[in-house]
Order: sequence, then structure tokens, then C-alpha cells
Amino acid sequence: MEVTFSQLIEIAGVIVFSISGAFSAMQKRFDAFGVIVIGFVTALGGGTIRDVMIGYTPVTWMRQIHFPLISLVAGASTLFLKPYIKNLKVTFIIFDAIGLGLYTVIGVNKGLAFGLHPVVCIILGTITGAFGGVVRDILLNNVPHLFRKEIYATACVVGGIFFFMIKDLFDSDITKAITIMIVCTIRLVAVKYNFSMPKFYDRPVALKKDV
Amino acid sequence: MEVTFSQLIEIAGVIVFSISGAFSAMQKRFDAFGVIVIGFVTALGGGTIRDVMIGYTPVTWMRQIHFPLISLVAGASTLFLKPYIKNLKVTFIIFDAIGLGLYTVIGVNKGLAFGLHPVVCIILGTITGAFGGVVRDILLNNVPHLFRKEIYATACVVGGIFFFMIKDLFDSDITKAITIMIVCTIRLVAVKYNFSMPKFYDRPVALKKDV
Amino acid sequence: MEVTFSQLIEIAGVIVFSISGAFSAMQKRFDAFGVIVIGFVTALGGGTIRDVMIGYTPVTWMRQIHFPLISLVAGASTLFLKPYIKNLKVTFIIFDAIGLGLYTVIGVNKGLAFGLHPVVCIILGTITGAFGGVVRDILLNNVPHLFRKEIYATACVVGGIFFFMIKDLFDSDITKAITIMIVCTIRLVAVKYNFSMPKFYDRPVALKKDV
Repeated sequence: MEVTFSQLIEIAGVIVFSISGAFSAMQKRFDAFGVIVIGFVTALGGGTIRDVMIGYTPVTWMRQIHFPLISLVAGASTLFLKPYIKNLKVTFIIFDAIGLGLYTVIGVNKGLAFGLHPVVCIILGTITGAFGGVVRDILLNNVPHLFRKEIYATACVVGGIFFFMIKDLFDSDITKAITIMIVCTIRLVAVKYNFSMPKFYDRPVALKKDV
Repeated sequence: MEVTFSQLIEIAGVIVFSISGAFSAMQKRFDAFGVIVIGFVTALGGGTIRDVMIGYTPVTWMRQIHFPLISLVAGASTLFLKPYIKNLKVTFIIFDAIGLGLYTVIGVNKGLAFGLHPVVCIILGTITGAFGGVVRDILLNNVPHLFRKEIYATACVVGGIFFFMIKDLFDSDITKAITIMIVCTIRLVAVKYNFSMPKFYDRPVALKKDV
Repeated sequence: MEVTFSQLIEIAGVIVFSISGAFSAMQKRFDAFGVIVIGFVTALGGGTIRDVMIGYTPVTWMRQIHFPLISLVAGASTLFLKPYIKNLKVTFIIFDAIGLGLYTVIGVNKGLAFGLHPVVCIILGTITGAFGGVVRDILLNNVPHLFRKEIYATACVVGGIFFFMIKDLFDSDITKAITIMIVCTIRLVAVKYNFSMPKFYDRPVALKKDV
């Protein structure tokens, strides 16, 4: 079995997202089973939602068995490797950003393959890249980080728009590579300079807790 | 492109649900991206769940591109028009009730088109009308209002039952119109007189917070 | 209509899961509608997620109308029978364990019927058995019990692995019966001796509340 460069990055994405999901679950003191499941949904949840909505079933990870296997191993490893992984924070952020870019491109192209409108394709790219984290936050009973923290999904949206602006100018592979770089760069710049999306509120207000 | 009266109400429903969803997100201090997404899922989430469960994929909003476009514009506008929209509270409640009725009828008829049992059709109508709000509440990390507040989904259920009671008596369009009016009326009466579904508890109990 | 032993247990499973879901909703003071809905998703949510992900649509409960009907009646009855049901706690735990085993076997076999990899089949068995409870907890705005409490989903996983270890040694029905007994036994032993999955933390830490 020959593995392309794109597949390598995709596998790296699954590993990184699984580990980061598993970490979040450990912080909430989930048991071993919960940690592995949360790693799984973080890595494969976005693609699952995309596949289910466009009707590509059984969903991708059921057809490409190496994805769930890699995710399960990565999640289980996180239980033991915690101290070592902690020191790799920067490595993590970089791989997470590359994975985000790649997932976006995969989602956009899946939409194209189904003959869907560019706007829908961009939405599918964003779901693929960023909604695994939304499912993770729902299961952890957190408000999804995505909607209140620094630029993340927005990088997918901008990348998706760029994809359609340049796709008739370049070869398909080059278009994909450029899009991945754009998403990745926006994300890394946002992390470094702590950029966020604007909020539209005059002054800080106390959060109303809805029980 | 000719637009029927029914399509106009459907578009009004998407606008109203998008704006009300966007509002809820602003109250939780979501960023601009989050506000637009919450508007989107409030307006289109119920129909998406329905489509996915019956196997109508790609889901409706991927085939009828004006729905996501209208929702995105409505959600984005809410960010800027907040002060003006506030004064339209009554207008809102009325459109929300009409949209609820229309969504219910759309869901019921989708079930019929798939040859499903009346009980399933009524469930699909209720999901179409009321479950966009459930997804919204899950993403906002609230307990779904639907399950504890005034009559809302119950209006869909009652309307759905009525639909099947009268559908052999009248022409298809008249049946739909009557059902929409029933749902809408129940909802508006419930709001005006603050009716709720019964709860089955002897006395108020302190809520146990499950962290 | 002839009813097999396996169908009887399946119906018992739907009843037990509906009642236990309805109970949880009553504890959170949901209204009558909410109680019935939560009973429904607890009993039928896991199978729905499974069906949607493998593309078996319309999902099972839309094709076998007795399942939603039984669930709705069971959920509604819970509202009135609360005091009587309370005394049946042990009966409940036993039926819940049997239902868990049966649901697992149903899920695994559905995966096999779709020609999916054993690992995917085991995941599908676990989802069928245990994820109705996850949807219930999400709607109740609780952290899913599954990920922090005693052994539950793990019984499904172990049962699923056993299924594939013995399925070439025995007749199909015997394999299923043994698997159900294994899941059921693990679950009951776990309840009796209060076994849990290991957590990987040195010392208790304060939970960070993410608002």
C-alpha cells in the first residue's frame, strides 16, 4: 500500500485531534473509556456529520478502517503519555493547524464531488475541520469553544472562499496545497497574536446561567 | 422564478428563526461566527435532523441554496440591527408561530411522501418545527427550553394529529392551511395566557446540578 | 403475528430504557412532553445514530412502528406510575442489563449485514446499547454518565469482542445468546461490586467549570 503525502497529513491530523480530544476529557476526569471516545469524536466527528448530511454512508471511517484504529490507539496512548506530550505544545498547535487546513480541503472537495453549491462546500469544509471539536464540547458539557474563542472555524471559511477564487487558475493539487497553507497560516497567526472574531456588545455583562 | 405563498411563509420562517437563534447566541456573548452559526442551526437544524433520519440526502438546504443564504444574511444582520429588531417583539412572536405551523406541515408531508406511518409523520412534523431550537439550546449549553417552558412542540403534535383527522375531508391545500392555523393559534394562545404542559411533581425541589 | 423470544426481549428493552429515561427527565422537572421525548431518545436514540451512520434509512423505528408506540406509552405511563415503579429497582437493573446485551448484539449484527469491519461492528454494538443514554444526558444538559460512572459501555465492547472470538465456533443463535449473557453478566457484576473503569489521575482535582 502506497501512502501519499496527503494521506500522511490526514493520518497526522487524526492523531493530533484524537490526542487533543483525549486531553480535554482527562481534564474533565472522564474514565479510560470516555477519554478514548472523546478522542475519537474530536478526530472523526466533523467528517461523520458531513457524510451523514450529504448521504455518503456508511460514513468514511467505516470504510477506511485505519482511521478509527489510529484514533483509538492515539486516544489510549494519551492516557499513558500525558507527561511527555505536554512538552510538545508547540508541535501540537502546528499539526492541529495543518490538520485543520487539510480537513477543510477534504470537506470542500467532498461537497464538489456531490455536485453541491460552493457555499454548501465551504460549509462542509468548515464542518469537517471544526465540528469534531463542537461534538467534543457538547459531550464534555462545555459551551463550544469554537463560538467564543480565538479564530478557528473562520480560518476554514476564509480558506474555503479562497479555494473557489483560485480553483480555475491552478492545477487541482496546487489549489489544495495553497488552501491548506492559507487556513494553516490564518490559524497560526491568530494563535500567535491572540486574534478573535469581533463580538457585538457594548460592555461586559454577567453571564446568565440557564439551569 | 415564481414564488408561491407557501414559499414566502417558509422564507419568513427561516428569517425569523435565524434572527431569534442569533439573538440567543448574542445573549451568551458568542462571537460573530457563533451568532451566525446558531441562527443557521435554529432555522435549518430541525429539517436537517428530519432529512437525515428519513434518508433524504443531501439534506434540503443543500439542494435549495436560497435557504442557507437567507439564514446567513439574517444571522449576520442581527449583529447590527439588534436595537431595531427589539421593538418588533410582537411581530416576531406572530411570525415564529406561523413558521412553526408551516414547518410542521412541511415535516408531516415529507413523512407522507416517504410512505411513513402517521405517528412517524407527526413526529417528523414536530422535529421540523421544534428541534432546530433544541440543537440551538444544546450548542448554547442550555437545557432545551422545549422541555420545560410553555407549550411549543405540543402545538406541532396537536396540529399533526388534526392533519390526519381532516386530510380525507378536504383538499390537500386546505388541509395544510387549516393545520398551519391550528398550530399557530395554539401557540399564540399559549403565549398570551402563559399556558404550559403539566408537570408531575408534588412540590418544588432543588435542582441537582450534575457537573 | 408470531413474536420470537428475541423480539420479546427487544420490546422489554424499549420499555425499560423508555421508563428509565422518563425518570431522569422527571428528576430534572421536565414537563410531560419533555419526559416522553427523553424516554423516546433513551430507548431509540442509540439505534437511530447507528442507522444514520450506516445509511439504513428511514431508520428502524420508522419501519417498525411498534417501537415508537411502545416507547411513547411507556414514557407517558411513567408520569403516573412513578411510585409503583420505584419499588421495582432490582427488576429494572436486570432488564436494563438484558436490554443492553440484546441491543449490543443487534448493533453488531447490523454492522455485519452491511459488510463492515469487526471493529466497526463492535463500535456499532456499543452505540446501539449505550448511546441512547448519551443523547439523553446531552438533552438533560448533564455530562454523559457513560464516561464517568461504573462499567456500562465497556460491557458492550467486551461482549462485541467475544462475539467475534466465538462466532465461527457456534451456531449464529448460540453466539448471540452467549454474547447477551456476557454483556449482561459484566454489567450486573459491575453494579453489584461497584466496579468502574480506571481513571488516570494522581489526585483529586477541582473541576474547572467552563461556562
